[in-house]
Amino acid sequence: MTQAPNPRRVRIFIAEKGTPVELRTINMMAGEHKTPEHLARHPSGKIPALETDDGQFIGESVAICRYLEAMHPKPDLLGSTPLEVGRIDMFNRILEFELWSQIGTSWVNGPVVAKMAAGRFKQIPEAKAASDTNTHRFYERLNRELGTRSHMADNRYSIADITALVAIDFASSMVGLKPADNLKNLWEWHARMSARPSAKA
Amino acid sequence: MTQAPNPRRVRIFIAEKGTPVELRTINMMAGEHKTPEHLARHPSGKIPALETDDGQFIGESVAICRYLEAMHPKPDLLGSTPLEVGRIDMFNRILEFELWSQIGTSWVNGPVVAKMAAGRFKQIPEAKAASDTNTHRFYERLNRELGTRSHMADNRYSIADITALVAIDFASSMVGLKPADNLKNLWEWHARMSARPSAKA
Repeated sequence: MTQAPNPRRVRIFIAEKGTPVELRTINMMAGEHKTPEHLARHPSGKIPALETDDGQFIGESVAICRYLEAMHPKPDLLGSTPLEVGRIDMFNRILEFELWSQIGTSWVNGPVVAKMAAGRFKQIPEAKAASDTNTHRFYERLNRELGTRSHMADNRYSIADITALVAIDFASSMVGLKPADNLKNLWEWHARMSARPSAKA
Repeated sequence: MTQAPNPRRVRIFIAEKGTPVELRTINMMAGEHKTPEHLARHPSGKIPALETDDGQFIGESVAICRYLEAMHPKPDLLGSTPLEVGRIDMFNRILEFELWSQIGTSWVNGPVVAKMAAGRFKQIPEAKAASDTNTHRFYERLNRELGTRSHMADNRYSIADITALVAIDFASSMVGLKPADNLKNLWEWHARMSARPSAKA
């Protein structure tokens, strides 16, 4: 499922590293992610998952990136000093817990999933309304913060930029949560990130 | 606020490392976490936050642990090989996204927060009902998985055990989400983790 946001995070990370990794698509519509074969790759049956050269599996996008960084340290996207490692993880986690999770709540309680799930679980419209509001508020916060730094984590490119780019692109195209036009710092950052060759991954 | 779960994660991590770190309590009831002084430590005004010896700040519990691990690699709690680093982060993230987040949803939409927030935001009872169910389902999954491995991340102690212990203790004592008595593997693991001196932190 090439539209899925988490696999795109890893594809961009791989493109930035320049490390060749063989890609395989999992057909989620056909339930391939819930087969015993895929559950061995990721215990929650999620994507993406990585198979190492010696046949071990790692699931979860950021965990995969962390493995790839340990195997191929340069260019570093997770930080090169203890302070950078800590600061980049802080910003990446803030984006995951305060932006990505809100977009996710709007997505699972929104119209596209309603059609895909066809009544198999109960959506909560109130939860979507709250997370729509929170998402736009967080965009405003990012816009303010990007007035004082060039990237999502301080003043250098990192995994936090990948997390934010993929979240915003997914929210804009699939969840109806595009940042407002007047958020100039955010859109300037978005244009810079989108111009990197890796963004096409 | 010594009951807060995220600071306890870092306190246990520090106790396992044996690294002396000076602790300071933030009075959340008095709003001390939303002052400009604390926002400089953590841009979201959350706890915990760490001040490094040279006056830099890192927020987010796992980001702080990652910094401490980079500064004091032994005993390692985040993995000593690329594969361990990836696998431990995978299990830790699964616990955060599929257990911790559900407990958090039940907490913010539950009776204790209703009293503390006193109408300042709108709770969603349906969201609490769904996350209560999801939490108990996840406990059952952990109980099954602990039939095939000794720890949360494969067969070694790691940050994933700290994440799970703190989540379960908080859910049991503050959110009314104690694991069912018949989940024997989970309780056996819980007893082993609680017996470590660090659990008192």
